[in-house]
Amino acid sequence: MTVTKQIKEIAKGIYDSILKKKQPHLEAPLRSLSNVKYDDKLGYFELIGKKKSRTLTVGTVKTFAQTLRMMTLSKELVDKDDIATKREAYYVSKNWGEARFTTQPESDTVMDDVEAMLMVNREQMGFIPEEKGGDVAGKLIVIDKDQDTGKQIKIDCTKMGSGAYSIPSSVEELKFETNAKFILAIETAGMFQRLVKHNYWKKSNCILISMGGVPTRACRRFIRKLSDAKKLPVYVFTDGDPYGFGSIYRTLKVGSGNAAHINKYFCVPNAKFIGITPQDIIDYKLPTHPLKDVDIKKIKDLMKNDPFILHHKEWQKALKQMAQMKVRAEQQALAKWGLNFVISDYLPKKLKNEKSWLP
Amino acid sequence: MTVTKQIKEIAKGIYDSILKKKQPHLEAPLRSLSNVKYDDKLGYFELIGKKKSRTLTVGTVKTFAQTLRMMTLSKELVDKDDIATKREAYYVSKNWGEARFTTQPESDTVMDDVEAMLMVNREQMGFIPEEKGGDVAGKLIVIDKDQDTGKQIKIDCTKMGSGAYSIPSSVEELKFETNAKFILAIETAGMFQRLVKHNYWKKSNCILISMGGVPTRACRRFIRKLSDAKKLPVYVFTDGDPYGFGSIYRTLKVGSGNAAHINKYFCVPNAKFIGITPQDIIDYKLPTHPLKDVDIKKIKDLMKNDPFILHHKEWQKALKQMAQMKVRAEQQALAKWGLNFVISDYLPKKLKNEKSWLP
Repeated sequence: MTVTKQIKEIAKGIYDSILKKKQPHLEAPLRSLSNVKYDDKLGYFELIGKKKSRTLTVGTVKTFAQTLRMMTLSKELVDKDDIATKREAYYVSKNWGEARFTTQPESDTVMDDVEAMLMVNREQMGFIPEEKGGDVAGKLIVIDKDQDTGKQIKIDCTKMGSGAYSIPSSVEELKFETNAKFILAIETAGMFQRLVKHNYWKKSNCILISMGGVPTRACRRFIRKLSDAKKLPVYVFTDGDPYGFGSIYRTLKVGSGNAAHINKYFCVPNAKFIGITPQDIIDYKLPTHPLKDVDIKKIKDLMKNDPFILHHKEWQKALKQMAQMKVRAEQQALAKWGLNFVISDYLPKKLKNEKSWLP
Repeated sequence: MTVTKQIKEIAKGIYDSILKKKQPHLEAPLRSLSNVKYDDKLGYFELIGKKKSRTLTVGTVKTFAQTLRMMTLSKELVDKDDIATKREAYYVSKNWGEARFTTQPESDTVMDDVEAMLMVNREQMGFIPEEKGGDVAGKLIVIDKDQDTGKQIKIDCTKMGSGAYSIPSSVEELKFETNAKFILAIETAGMFQRLVKHNYWKKSNCILISMGGVPTRACRRFIRKLSDAKKLPVYVFTDGDPYGFGSIYRTLKVGSGNAAHINKYFCVPNAKFIGITPQDIIDYKLPTHPLKDVDIKKIKDLMKNDPFILHHKEWQKALKQMAQMKVRAEQQALAKWGLNFVISDYLPKKLKNEKSWLP
């Protein structure tokens, strides 16, 4: 069912309730870690069914009106093929009279509620993230359209020179052509630039994606759509530290707790970790940095509370090993053995040896 | 003189000193705000000539050796047409025996010293920034080359669909073709995406550049090179707050204090401010946020210490007005009057009325 149709039906339900002199109400899944489980087969955090209901009363009248207004805005965006960021949606509300939002966090929450209510990602509702992020180079043609004419545009990511194709805020309508063998998602822009500079994608027949830290929604959705559409494995190359494991990789692979209603659109269940492991630090005698207090805290958190880590013995083992070694290593640390050691040795060996990956 | 030749000459000077049994020394400009002035005609912070000298003694032997090693690495990079980030350079030093760096800030400082000594930007020495940044869409063809074949590649920024061309870490070798009338540099990715979505560059015959906050070195250098090569005016569209004025715009236009030896490569002297001014907040009745303590502090700092602001009465007036109004406004605040008010009204009016700009 289209977003517009869903919105119309909810609106009709409320209208009918009012005509029947019943109290209208809206229902949405509860958005919190207490309402998710990790399902290995699905591959992402999934909702376990707790709901919250908002009934129209004297106390809820403002939020109720705001929710309906937000749904109206979404319908307008979809109908007109326009977009709005969260921030713009907040400012648009300044013309909603008494229903206007006082601060942006209020309007963000209502938008998240509508997103959860419709069980779609908000990009499908016309709302785009504030931040872009994600650069692409290599064996991929992205198929987009001209905004004015609707004519197809083919963007060849092998023809970007030392630059790259920058992923747009919303990727819902993109299509792909490729004969690449895999996607390599890279933590830092510096490492990405090295692999681009040396045309690594040509040698290894792959698509390079720079995440620039924790991948944005657009970047995660892009990787997911591309991987689904072309049945491509996804390898993730991050620093060897709790942030790389637990924030960058974990978020890309299974999503996050407070956005469980949309994880199914954003997670990349077939992702494999080929970044720096504690064992690599030993095997490659890498230069390290001592773990900071936040790193140690993060490891403890992950091992105690994270359903994904709890599910995988290999990750528990790796985190335990890191805690004992008390050090972390960046992906650039491989440069100790020469700037292009990563291309000549590390990546080819890793990709060949499945046992050196983490799940 | 090429970087390689400069490095060879400095090395020869040291070698000759040693043969003559004189103490060898290295000289570089002092890098601090006390060694700069703002020259309106040049358009950037310029060095006023204070130097620091490093003579080889028992106390300086390690730094001296590290400086020479860093110069050697730079020469290798240039000779081989390779690149290294600051972080990679640090890790490479791990194989320099006693001359290895213990922490990255040490190696960064030595790199900055070499950069200042040669009076070039470090991209010319083969060192690239850690972070990329800067997306481009609109009437521009970027001319780059294939890394393997050296063959020319033309990248057409009108053919990126809803995406964009992502500026590489080093732009030294790029060339351009365009018949655009101006460059519009935009603070937020969200606003950039709106202008791209509605093909604003087509209507107004321009090049859109998303800075994503304070522009990276690569982004600043790209705008500067493009503006120089094609004699294009540069208009800068930021939020109406002290950060947009003093950090984003000021840095783009005149550079920064602690990098004065390279400002001449990175500043964009012909940039004009067409972002949200305090007067716009009044004229457009924009929704605002109260100034935070950091905003008030930033205004005071700018008005007291910043040579660029001190030079321009218009900026002093605007900052004073903001301090009195006690509020700031984001560029998205224009959405109060409709999501595309910025395209239909704000930008056309601003661009037509030179009096509404700030210098």
